Amino acid sequence: MRVILVAGTTKTAAIEGISAAGATSRLLMHTPSADAEIISYGLPIQAPVTPISPSGCPTPAVITRAIRERIGFDLTIIDAGLARPTGAPTVSVGARPGRDIRESEPVPTAPELFINAREFGQSLPDDQIVIGETIPGGTTTALAVCRALGVDVPTSSSIPTNPLRLKQNVTDKALSTAGISPGQFAHNPKHAIRAVGDPVLAVAAGTTVGAIESNTDVILGGGTQLLTVAALVRHAGVSERATLATTSYLAADVTGLNETATALNLDLIVTNPEFGAHDVDAGPLSEYANGVAKEGAGMGGALALIAEADRLNEVIPAVQHVLNRIEQQQSHENTVTYTDTKSP
Amino acid sequence: MRVILVAGTTKTAAIEGISAAGATSRLLMHTPSADAEIISYGLPIQAPVTPISPSGCPTPAVITRAIRERIGFDLTIIDAGLARPTGAPTVSVGARPGRDIRESEPVPTAPELFINAREFGQSLPDDQIVIGETIPGGTTTALAVCRALGVDVPTSSSIPTNPLRLKQNVTDKALSTAGISPGQFAHNPKHAIRAVGDPVLAVAAGTTVGAIESNTDVILGGGTQLLTVAALVRHAGVSERATLATTSYLAADVTGLNETATALNLDLIVTNPEFGAHDVDAGPLSEYANGVAKEGAGMGGALALIAEADRLNEVIPAVQHVLNRIEQQQSHENTVTYTDTKSP
Repeated sequence: MRVILVAGTTKTAAIEGISAAGATSRLLMHTPSADAEIISYGLPIQAPVTPISPSGCPTPAVITRAIRERIGFDLTIIDAGLARPTGAPTVSVGARPGRDIRESEPVPTAPELFINAREFGQSLPDDQIVIGETIPGGTTTALAVCRALGVDVPTSSSIPTNPLRLKQNVTDKALSTAGISPGQFAHNPKHAIRAVGDPVLAVAAGTTVGAIESNTDVILGGGTQLLTVAALVRHAGVSERATLATTSYLAADVTGLNETATALNLDLIVTNPEFGAHDVDAGPLSEYANGVAKEGAGMGGALALIAEADRLNEVIPAVQHVLNRIEQQQSHENTVTYTDTKSP
Repeated sequence: MRVILVAGTTKTAAIEGISAAGATSRLLMHTPSADAEIISYGLPIQAPVTPISPSGCPTPAVITRAIRERIGFDLTIIDAGLARPTGAPTVSVGARPGRDIRESEPVPTAPELFINAREFGQSLPDDQIVIGETIPGGTTTALAVCRALGVDVPTSSSIPTNPLRLKQNVTDKALSTAGISPGQFAHNPKHAIRAVGDPVLAVAAGTTVGAIESNTDVILGGGTQLLTVAALVRHAGVSERATLATTSYLAADVTGLNETATALNLDLIVTNPEFGAHDVDAGPLSEYANGVAKEGAGMGGALALIAEADRLNEVIPAVQHVLNRIEQQQSHENTVTYTDTKSP
């Protein structure tokens, strides 16, 4: 089993209110690089951030890593426009960081990226893969792409209060700059991404199409962005069944998840790791039950794998082991609030 | 346990007689990319070559991969100047392909590469790592660097008849172009590599120094080039004990291995996988016992790991499993002779 993490950035994350400004705005650009290192090595090794919230809620990359330490899946990270160096090994498909979607053509090379990623997906030897993502600001760009395609996908958030109106305004501006009306790029996924998307969507959708074409089963491990990837794949004319695996926290945050999955011909797996159960001391993980983070960095996919192995009860101790390791190595000044490092 | 493969290229490999010319000379530049894919995925996924000799002797990357499938070590590949794309995930330290060492400054950025790799080595969280290499032409550039340092390291070859006189002539020319006499760059490893080396030596030596400095045990898994890495590390002023793990085929090819290891303060592990034993059907692997290939792509290090786990007897069936997979997926026209793809 291979988990593929598609890691990249969009300047959309720097919009006031979508993310923090100034010094922290610079730091959030490190989050995908840090997530890649955490899943690769068990802790950040060169990235100057540990994405952990003020209340101590860790990035979902910690959960994906913890599960990897228990069930040992292969890992391949694709550089889909990282803006900061990473010590994690990455596959190159020629991606650059995405620009703010309120500007013209935020992903000018989206068609080439999609094609390169499709070739990579076709070349994978695996019977089954999980695809996850890490990109701050990614739910906002996903919303814009869905509007360009004319599809309805529930928009989640990594913080309890979802600034949906701001996201709507930003995507209004994106479609206006692109000079398109909702649905105008239906059946034209590459152009939708080029006009209003981000490089992670191009790479994740291309990889999924290529993998499906070469008879690899694909589990999309995530929420809003992976549903958007599914929509892009369908609008690329690929109709084979696939799976969406997400967390119970994501499922609880949105309405219409079942209907969306059905409309996109996706089997749906929702896994509840019980971080909020009253009889379990989940430590900082209990923040997930309070609506923080919810999903990302392949967490829902990794949870589906360990649940399939009937070892879901090992997740909490495995995560605590990873968190202890990170705590030992990182001084407090290196941490950065999680809510600052991911788009709401 | 983590195995780090340092993968790169030098134009030195294209010298007439050191390697094949024309179409095949272009193909050999794919070998490190193919080796990286084989160890990452179990077969080449995008590289257009399968490095297998006319007699069917597979690249040592196949053995490293086979051992990985049995004992499951972590893998990190560093791009130390790959000249062709690879579908394998790689860590970037800013390397470019090396130029022909008969030209001026074949690795102009060697000091920066060494420093970047040292930082990477320092950041690794592992208690112990194995470092291997894949670079066609690498024994010739290693010889030149040893002469610049003024150290004596036995020079092996991946083919039964070692063209030592040619290597001597090429390194004569390299030192002459650099305007240096043997030993002139003693205690100056970065300048030795910049003047007459290759990018893999810079990255492997820097990574080793950084790892040792942060209390990670280092096993240098290989032959001539890894002995040269040890010499570079000693000439960088790092005296802590380390280990060289190599194959019995490499050990049989050279004289003075024990003395060199002692001089460089290295523990020596020589592992014999018994590919040539008369009571075992090792198939194409028996070519190793005939003096083909011998070592490379971390093979000696991986053999030490599986021998330590007392599972050396699993290597031959594991390799045959990998070879069957490659045979099924690759058409004959995609294969390229191994002796054409690696410097003698």
